[in-house]
Amino acid sequence: MPKIVDHEKRRKQIAKATWKVILEQGMEGATVRNIAQEAGLSLGALRYYFSTQDELFVYAMKLVKANAAERINKIIASELPPFDKVMAILLEVVPIDPETMAEMEVWFAYVFYTRHKEDVLAAKKDEIFKGMRSLLLYLQQQQVLLAELDIEMETERLYALIDGLALHVLLESQRMDKERIVKVIQYHMEKICIDGVLVEGE
Amino acid sequence: MPKIVDHEKRRKQIAKATWKVILEQGMEGATVRNIAQEAGLSLGALRYYFSTQDELFVYAMKLVKANAAERINKIIASELPPFDKVMAILLEVVPIDPETMAEMEVWFAYVFYTRHKEDVLAAKKDEIFKGMRSLLLYLQQQQVLLAELDIEMETERLYALIDGLALHVLLESQRMDKERIVKVIQYHMEKICIDGVLVEGE
Repeated sequence: MPKIVDHEKRRKQIAKATWKVILEQGMEGATVRNIAQEAGLSLGALRYYFSTQDELFVYAMKLVKANAAERINKIIASELPPFDKVMAILLEVVPIDPETMAEMEVWFAYVFYTRHKEDVLAAKKDEIFKGMRSLLLYLQQQQVLLAELDIEMETERLYALIDGLALHVLLESQRMDKERIVKVIQYHMEKICIDGVLVEGE
Repeated sequence: MPKIVDHEKRRKQIAKATWKVILEQGMEGATVRNIAQEAGLSLGALRYYFSTQDELFVYAMKLVKANAAERINKIIASELPPFDKVMAILLEVVPIDPETMAEMEVWFAYVFYTRHKEDVLAAKKDEIFKGMRSLLLYLQQQQVLLAELDIEMETERLYALIDGLALHVLLESQRMDKERIVKVIQYHMEKICIDGVLVEGE
């Protein structure tokens, strides 16, 4: 069924054009017209694949999430020791390369945009909170996490740290480069884990 | 010179109308027309006080900063013990009441908006980083901070935590209410300070 494959391929291409427009012009520039132009399609052709702008946004954001999930699942399936595994997953969530930086910027722009359209488009932000808790529970179960910690508070702390760093790498990239972001996350994780389970250097 | 006072008063009134429009409609709704309407002014009258939209935005954001600085200076001048003083200042930075929540939302919207206008409007984000470092150095000088900490890393960690929490209180207010935000910040500060200097619960 080559038709269906092509259809999905074309939708992905439009989603990528959407990201590009958001990155270059912000959400306020992400009009259907600009996206069609970026994708090299007529307005009518774009409407064939996505009947509304919101439908296109929802799809583009699902793709961001699916890409991140795919990378994380590969790490989960890997043979890395627990501390290294969690570090690797956190570094997939915080943007440290151009591709994930673009994803994160689009994601933030989208989340702010949907603030005022709560019902229709609200992103499930709760998922990341739960993901952070799972990482900490995994470290606890592997006897890598310090004993006296409050998991609920540690989850809030890790989640806020990760989102705050993501924000800073986007907005204050002069100070917050890749090397520094890795160092801060590692510093935090070392503070909540027992000695002797740490990864070496970067 | 009542004329000048009135002029400044009117500019503040317009700035407040700007915040209100941003809060309700996002940056994309913050057109000169909408702001004039909210302020109960004609377009011409608004242009008399601010000749461009960017000039108005810059002024409105300066007012956000001035308000926060005034509240923080009052705390610095107070007789609070060091740990309590720093806690009180951090709780002025993170939005925990409707007024500061509005300020923070407007601030984030503005910061994202100016991403694509770096030269003209770029907010001085570096100031908050330096402010966080000052708080930690103050705690260190007062012998309240744990001895073995890396101040540079702790500054990044505290700054990311605060901005991450601010983001979550705006976007995930169902989980992250005022009580919880105080608890997370206190939890973090207790982890980096020596015992016996802590404020009693909230």
